[in-house]
Amino acid sequence: MQDQGSTSKLWGGRFSESTDAFVQAFTASVEFDRRLYRHDIAGSIAHATMLARAGVLTEAERDLIIEGLAAIREEIEHGEFPWSTALEDVHMNIEARLTDRIGAAGKKLHTGRSRNDQVATDIRLWLREEIDALLAEIRRLQEGLLGLAEREAATVMPGFTHLQTAQPVTFGHHMLAWFEMLERDHGRLTDARRRVNVMPLGAAALAGTSYPIDRAYTAELLGFDAPAENSLDAVSDRDFAIEFCAAAALVMTHLSRFSEELVLWASAQFDFIDLPDRFCTGSSIMPQKKNPDVPELVRGKTGRVNGHLVGLLTLMKSQPLAYNKDNQEDKEPLFDTVDTLKGSLRAYADMVPAIRVKAGAMREAARRGFSTATDLADYLVRRGLPFRDAHEVVGKAVAHGVASGRDLAEMDLDTLRGFSAAIGEDVYAVLTLEGSLAARDHLGGTAPDQVRAAIARARGRISR
Amino acid sequence: MQDQGSTSKLWGGRFSESTDAFVQAFTASVEFDRRLYRHDIAGSIAHATMLARAGVLTEAERDLIIEGLAAIREEIEHGEFPWSTALEDVHMNIEARLTDRIGAAGKKLHTGRSRNDQVATDIRLWLREEIDALLAEIRRLQEGLLGLAEREAATVMPGFTHLQTAQPVTFGHHMLAWFEMLERDHGRLTDARRRVNVMPLGAAALAGTSYPIDRAYTAELLGFDAPAENSLDAVSDRDFAIEFCAAAALVMTHLSRFSEELVLWASAQFDFIDLPDRFCTGSSIMPQKKNPDVPELVRGKTGRVNGHLVGLLTLMKSQPLAYNKDNQEDKEPLFDTVDTLKGSLRAYADMVPAIRVKAGAMREAARRGFSTATDLADYLVRRGLPFRDAHEVVGKAVAHGVASGRDLAEMDLDTLRGFSAAIGEDVYAVLTLEGSLAARDHLGGTAPDQVRAAIARARGRISR
Amino acid sequence: MQDQGSTSKLWGGRFSESTDAFVQAFTASVEFDRRLYRHDIAGSIAHATMLARAGVLTEAERDLIIEGLAAIREEIEHGEFPWSTALEDVHMNIEARLTDRIGAAGKKLHTGRSRNDQVATDIRLWLREEIDALLAEIRRLQEGLLGLAEREAATVMPGFTHLQTAQPVTFGHHMLAWFEMLERDHGRLTDARRRVNVMPLGAAALAGTSYPIDRAYTAELLGFDAPAENSLDAVSDRDFAIEFCAAAALVMTHLSRFSEELVLWASAQFDFIDLPDRFCTGSSIMPQKKNPDVPELVRGKTGRVNGHLVGLLTLMKSQPLAYNKDNQEDKEPLFDTVDTLKGSLRAYADMVPAIRVKAGAMREAARRGFSTATDLADYLVRRGLPFRDAHEVVGKAVAHGVASGRDLAEMDLDTLRGFSAAIGEDVYAVLTLEGSLAARDHLGGTAPDQVRAAIARARGRISR
Amino acid sequence: MQDQGSTSKLWGGRFSESTDAFVQAFTASVEFDRRLYRHDIAGSIAHATMLARAGVLTEAERDLIIEGLAAIREEIEHGEFPWSTALEDVHMNIEARLTDRIGAAGKKLHTGRSRNDQVATDIRLWLREEIDALLAEIRRLQEGLLGLAEREAATVMPGFTHLQTAQPVTFGHHMLAWFEMLERDHGRLTDARRRVNVMPLGAAALAGTSYPIDRAYTAELLGFDAPAENSLDAVSDRDFAIEFCAAAALVMTHLSRFSEELVLWASAQFDFIDLPDRFCTGSSIMPQKKNPDVPELVRGKTGRVNGHLVGLLTLMKSQPLAYNKDNQEDKEPLFDTVDTLKGSLRAYADMVPAIRVKAGAMREAARRGFSTATDLADYLVRRGLPFRDAHEVVGKAVAHGVASGRDLAEMDLDTLRGFSAAIGEDVYAVLTLEGSLAARDHLGGTAPDQVRAAIARARGRISR
Repeated sequence: MQDQGSTSKLWGGRFSESTDAFVQAFTASVEFDRRLYRHDIAGSIAHATMLARAGVLTEAERDLIIEGLAAIREEIEHGEFPWSTALEDVHMNIEARLTDRIGAAGKKLHTGRSRNDQVATDIRLWLREEIDALLAEIRRLQEGLLGLAEREAATVMPGFTHLQTAQPVTFGHHMLAWFEMLERDHGRLTDARRRVNVMPLGAAALAGTSYPIDRAYTAELLGFDAPAENSLDAVSDRDFAIEFCAAAALVMTHLSRFSEELVLWASAQFDFIDLPDRFCTGSSIMPQKKNPDVPELVRGKTGRVNGHLVGLLTLMKSQPLAYNKDNQEDKEPLFDTVDTLKGSLRAYADMVPAIRVKAGAMREAARRGFSTATDLADYLVRRGLPFRDAHEVVGKAVAHGVASGRDLAEMDLDTLRGFSAAIGEDVYAVLTLEGSLAARDHLGGTAPDQVRAAIARARGRISR
Repeated sequence: MQDQGSTSKLWGGRFSESTDAFVQAFTASVEFDRRLYRHDIAGSIAHATMLARAGVLTEAERDLIIEGLAAIREEIEHGEFPWSTALEDVHMNIEARLTDRIGAAGKKLHTGRSRNDQVATDIRLWLREEIDALLAEIRRLQEGLLGLAEREAATVMPGFTHLQTAQPVTFGHHMLAWFEMLERDHGRLTDARRRVNVMPLGAAALAGTSYPIDRAYTAELLGFDAPAENSLDAVSDRDFAIEFCAAAALVMTHLSRFSEELVLWASAQFDFIDLPDRFCTGSSIMPQKKNPDVPELVRGKTGRVNGHLVGLLTLMKSQPLAYNKDNQEDKEPLFDTVDTLKGSLRAYADMVPAIRVKAGAMREAARRGFSTATDLADYLVRRGLPFRDAHEVVGKAVAHGVASGRDLAEMDLDTLRGFSAAIGEDVYAVLTLEGSLAARDHLGGTAPDQVRAAIARARGRISR
Repeated sequence: MQDQGSTSKLWGGRFSESTDAFVQAFTASVEFDRRLYRHDIAGSIAHATMLARAGVLTEAERDLIIEGLAAIREEIEHGEFPWSTALEDVHMNIEARLTDRIGAAGKKLHTGRSRNDQVATDIRLWLREEIDALLAEIRRLQEGLLGLAEREAATVMPGFTHLQTAQPVTFGHHMLAWFEMLERDHGRLTDARRRVNVMPLGAAALAGTSYPIDRAYTAELLGFDAPAENSLDAVSDRDFAIEFCAAAALVMTHLSRFSEELVLWASAQFDFIDLPDRFCTGSSIMPQKKNPDVPELVRGKTGRVNGHLVGLLTLMKSQPLAYNKDNQEDKEPLFDTVDTLKGSLRAYADMVPAIRVKAGAMREAARRGFSTATDLADYLVRRGLPFRDAHEVVGKAVAHGVASGRDLAEMDLDTLRGFSAAIGEDVYAVLTLEGSLAARDHLGGTAPDQVRAAIARARGRISR
Repeated sequence: MQDQGSTSKLWGGRFSESTDAFVQAFTASVEFDRRLYRHDIAGSIAHATMLARAGVLTEAERDLIIEGLAAIREEIEHGEFPWSTALEDVHMNIEARLTDRIGAAGKKLHTGRSRNDQVATDIRLWLREEIDALLAEIRRLQEGLLGLAEREAATVMPGFTHLQTAQPVTFGHHMLAWFEMLERDHGRLTDARRRVNVMPLGAAALAGTSYPIDRAYTAELLGFDAPAENSLDAVSDRDFAIEFCAAAALVMTHLSRFSEELVLWASAQFDFIDLPDRFCTGSSIMPQKKNPDVPELVRGKTGRVNGHLVGLLTLMKSQPLAYNKDNQEDKEPLFDTVDTLKGSLRAYADMVPAIRVKAGAMREAARRGFSTATDLADYLVRRGLPFRDAHEVVGKAVAHGVASGRDLAEMDLDTLRGFSAAIGEDVYAVLTLEGSLAARDHLGGTAPDQVRAAIARARGRISR
């Protein structure tokens, strides 16, 4: 960062005193908003192109500006750009440099716009691009899940409610639950993108401009769906950032749930899966440790994204129109949310296909824990008992099993018939894990054939 | 609430000890989830109808169940239903009562479902209905805004940035900024509704059921777009509640911004509007006070909704699949969010058309404060100065005006020409408020004709 | 609720139009603030007593007021009080009723105060009382933990980091970790109480009053440590509510961590503990289920309290002084936070002493998982290896153990010496669980004697 | 950052595969935790000193370590340290470098500790130092407020409730309200510091260590009040970070309230104050603008700190003991909270003494708006009317004033007596601003003498 005296500020005319040095650093945004340089330059090029078509710039001026901006982009990408905190932000830095390079034409670029609409445009261009990258990463993770689900479509595991063994499900079925969460995330981000892709440029400071601008043309050049309908709203709206962060918080909530399960499953107590060494780290003191760092860290990062959402909601609460300096605080939470999401999705998309399933341990866990008790109740209903009475009968059989240390399938027929005379030899078929799974044979159920059909449907949905 | 011994609980078979009395009260949800009774009954009727078509119930059983449920709905609506905390929740209360009334057939209703999919279905049915009511209320408020905008399409007020006078805008233009915020809210709630309107029923506890259920049929009966694709996801998903609350938080953020402006405008210092007495209250000690209670209270209620959003995100963070008791905590924040939103929107929709604008005070405020300084800069650009040089010239003129207590339009031509020789007689036309407004004559700009065109477009958008 | 016309409002003099009926209901607080009736009456009695001593009321008026208020308290407690929404809040309801009962003297009670200082006083009196109850409940839970810790001071369990077996600890030691968290909570609530116990009364609306009040005397009568120093601050401060909710959020965070562990430990996979049936519930569909509802629900309630904290912070953000109607929104989150905390602490204080530990399963889990690997490394350091080299040696031995399915203590001496010649016969002593525990024999360590010493110190700390 | 192969990791012994390159970058913390280097080195020096006294290190080893660490500190401060992402964090970087420099003795430093207790110690040392700096900055701001309050102890301004003119107060009195908020902040941070200043070191990974460490001695060397009582708690506790952030959120809430008022007061509509140019910035398009950037930006930064608080609460929710990788996420929010707080307090402490008060405009605003209506009511009470009747009388007089455009002091005696015959000539004395102010002559009231007495007390309180 270079610091030049603030007397050279682009708005200094009315001021009798230069900015306090600490205040200058405290209020400057260039340290973080320089990240927007590509979008700022793209916006300026479109703006200059439109101004030339509208007759506000000559074609020569337009060409000078476009060439100058292209050269500045090069400078930035080669680390040769003289960033200055005194010039406050990415916009002023680039514009000042443009005037250095091309002279008077550079001073004309800001005609018919303001930093208020310019920054709102930049950030929308940037976020649109990032959303597209996130959507692709979600798809990559979903594909990994479908592959894993297919591989383990019939692999038995205990399904849990209240972290108690409930009923057998298949590992593939479980992976499809994760798939569905991501599918909603994809939908929400796609919906959010529509509201991002609206162009503030032309709102100028707050009221529009007196130049004969053609906003539809600029919007077309920049790939926006439409110009924003109201200038006051255009410069003060940060809904799109909040909506994006809310969608991001749900993505992270889902990843936190996946993480919780991976951490549990990788514990010695569950021992359902193995994570490859390359996604784990060790301990500085305990030589035996292999820690599931990636899921843990992703779970922890959920807090960060929830926090940014709250930060942005707090920021906008009660702000009168139109632009206030408060809004400068929109960027860092948004940037960090995108970075966190990209990193977390990438780590998961890389890791999921490498999960190794320990089918034996999962089957053994499902076999214990009376996981087919519901099947026995359903069997009794088919024998004519009302469901609530069947539930009562099975409850007593389970209590006996807990006391005697035997699962239902391990009791002999006489014992079972002691609880209900309606029980016959054929009961053992419904008490097997495979029988239980196969019976849940409807859309959304865990029967392996249903899981395979769901995978096929899912492939269709994401290829659209 | 009546309390019966927990030995009669519908799941008591396996238990050797009855529930602790305090624990029973602490874990029961019927105090708040009874609100879902209509949707619980509607879901049960559809479920019974499907079970009969699938041959699991006889037609006679189905009819008994439907009549029994209808009678129970009557009982509830007449305040004659014997709610019991010992029966935990609305589902168990209604089912137990059904069995009391119709005997054994009542015990068959729960066949092929679980409370896990039942409660998820109830809450989605309820929320779908509430979203529709909220969408209607948003439209009513938008219509009020359009009426007010039309009435005041050309009424001058100072536009602010940083709460400093920036440029003149019209009051109608300002109202349209509010309209746009609500339009995005309408879009977000509509998008959220699509993800709400998916049916969990049939997921049973977590894995599906062994009965030959027809989920597509039940979904059709209940007006759902489709059954949920995965049973584990169906019972554990609370995304829809979080997405709704995030959309609600943005609605409240917007209302908080409107409120902030109304409170400012109703102050003696701004004096831009008058709120009718019926939306204000007085002071117990200061006889002269007329307080803008409704905007203040709505502004305050923003906190409540932001808080509920955080509560739900925290609730779901790191929960392993499938259903956990934690999820019972989804209801109260969701209920209160809906109630807060409905009340706040209603208050605003009632109040907005009654806002009285003090056009004289607004015009006077706009006249002062150098609000046409940008117009002078634009004038100089049209005279050939680069924008940045024009900005500098005007800055010096303003500094002179601050020192001498005169606005730009109050300086004589010689004084103005002292700052730039490019200034001519015709400058005074651009320094008037009307000239400034009329010049912002492009889509989204504040020129009264543009405001009227925007109102016409807005009418079209909301009538779709 | 009775509703009387708002023309009878205590502040109606200046108004030409009565309050809109919906607005009246929307802005009224009596539905929830009636809960403060005892503290409102106590505050009024102290205020009247002070006014009489100051000569503003006669002794006869004071006595009439005190008797009238006592009678009103009786009415409320017997459910005979005619609450009215039109009278807005608990303060107006009680004052109007007082005037009904005792005539003109009742109208004098409000002399020298305002609802602004009155409500702030009421809520502080109420919260002070609730904090005392919460502190007692924390102590009860801590005592339960100490009892359990003592019982299981030497019971071996695997200590986890990253949910991977790390080193053996004792169950008692683990319970003391929970104790420490609660000890900090006790400290934070005690600190918060000091800032709660400051009296706003006398600030009147915002500026103080022209009556010769004696605030020190009123403060003494009400048990406040001191009157608030500044009247503007006194009526607008809600720090105490936020600070309390932040402390409450930490209590709930701790309970959520205890809950997570109990849920894990009660799973079939861990099987470390058994929770008595009376703290669990069953399933409506799966007869075998015994769900740890209390820990799950408490874990879920964390979200609610975090949400209230955010709600209050959002509420106060950017509010100009002094009192604004927004502040009415402080009560419901505060009330619900207190209720949630009391219920959750009570449930835990009841449940903790009833936790049954499965010592065999915990010992077996600790025996596996190379939990004494660090001890081997420390052994090698004592034999002269630098710690980092010892770590490397043990890492290789563990890798061998993973591959061959044997724990360190199960390898023969030759095998162990293959990793380092420094290993001798005496190594097996450090590889036992008891050896590992006993070695951590310093303040804060898990050696059973240290655990017992820590319990003794803890008893001393909470009896102070 | 240099990247070395992860095969050289300090925990690599047990691993068969090196860390994935992206995972390595994703999970590394050295980019942000290197900020702790001074505290890490201080902790290591104390640890080595203790180990030598305990006989675990020789004096020569201790001296080598201390010299090596001092040299590394120099390297870091001169920007010559070879930071490496492959070495994960600040701890591993420094330790690896130490071994490079001093050989085998460096490998002994980690004896009897773990990264788990090390990082918890570092962050507490760091935060303790930062809290001390923040406490000093709060005092500096408070002193600025007392100076301003003294200068303007008798300067009349309108006091507001509901942003409506309520009663006259003095500007000095208003500044003291801000002082009180900061005084509570000072108290909260001081209380938090006590809970920060407890030493985790010696907890090792989670259970303590088998070396004969002397924790009390290390604590003394590092200036901690005491060692942490329980090893499991010591490594997993992050309460202190949350408690600090909650206290910080309240500081920012207060600054947001000050900011809101400064922004209002600096508007053309209020025009109560002037902020020096050096704390303001201009507009890129509107040459006349002088924007109160510092207050606006500070107001906006409130969101950031609230967000970090939520992030940390979310992070810790439901984490089982002891250390989990999630906890790595504690640092960035904490660092940014400290930075934000320091910057905001500094900006305010610099700016407050430079606020220029426009006494004329404030007096004029107070004169209008019936700000002495309460005084008239009090006058009538002294003439024998019950307060509620007096309130009614004044309400009618005000309604007349609103209709006729005259304040109370502008009505003639006959007009006033038309509302109550109790009014006499002497009423005009109570209707003046000075009369009103002087009458609020009790502790906490706005009478200028009370303001001066409050300033004197405040000076005493902060000099303690």
